[in-house]
Amino acid sequence: MIMRQLVAELFDCNAGIEDVDALLETAKRAAERAGATTIGEAHAEYQPHGLTAIVFLAESHILLTTWPEIKLLMVDVLLCNPDMSTATVLEEIKAQFCPDGTARTREVERVISTTPDELGDGDG
Amino acid sequence: MIMRQLVAELFDCNAGIEDVDALLETAKRAAERAGATTIGEAHAEYQPHGLTAIVFLAESHILLTTWPEIKLLMVDVLLCNPDMSTATVLEEIKAQFCPDGTARTREVERVISTTPDELGDGDG
Repeated sequence: MIMRQLVAELFDCNAGIEDVDALLETAKRAAERAGATTIGEAHAEYQPHGLTAIVFLAESHILLTTWPEIKLLMVDVLLCNPDMSTATVLEEIKAQFCPDGTARTREVERVISTTPDELGDGDG
Repeated sequence: MIMRQLVAELFDCNAGIEDVDALLETAKRAAERAGATTIGEAHAEYQPHGLTAIVFLAESHILLTTWPEIKLLMVDVLLCNPDMSTATVLEEIKAQFCPDGTARTREVERVISTTPDELGDGDG
């Protein structure tokens, strides 16, 4: 099975990215919108600012890293259910924190298999 | 600043990937070998098996997701210090859990900036 991990940087984000509770609540709401199930959460704070927050999902995770001093929010989303949309998760997070900002997004293939042979392109 | 996030799947891993303490201890040792500083840790367990474990670093994070039923260990490493080696982190984790297995690795560019303009290739 090939899953696509969504990786994004969101620019020009608002001050909400300094608020760990807002980040976690938004990530959980985004997971719910995508149909995923939250099973835990954790975070770490940096000095003088910035934090990393993770929401553990039954389907894998949403990981957020913030750089408030440059208004940057980095997002990683992996949903190990092909019927669920990582784009929906990102949309919810962007709408909350960076509605007017630019998003740079791409997808990274993750191989959920006993061997890498499932890949056709031999890139690893 | 462009940082390179290391993303990997490790195949044919041993039963150690079922042990959350072993995963966290190995990730912290790997971080230390790379010169990084651990500032926290967390994990979530899946039923009937598998887990996600994260070590929060002053320089960002090491994230491990395991699929013991198919002997798979997925690794994400981001070190926001260009003098530190994500390859060193992966090497330590692979040696502990998947010494004889195949590794599929690639690097994902993360933009730590106020805009995506720092990128030359306009891929996002």
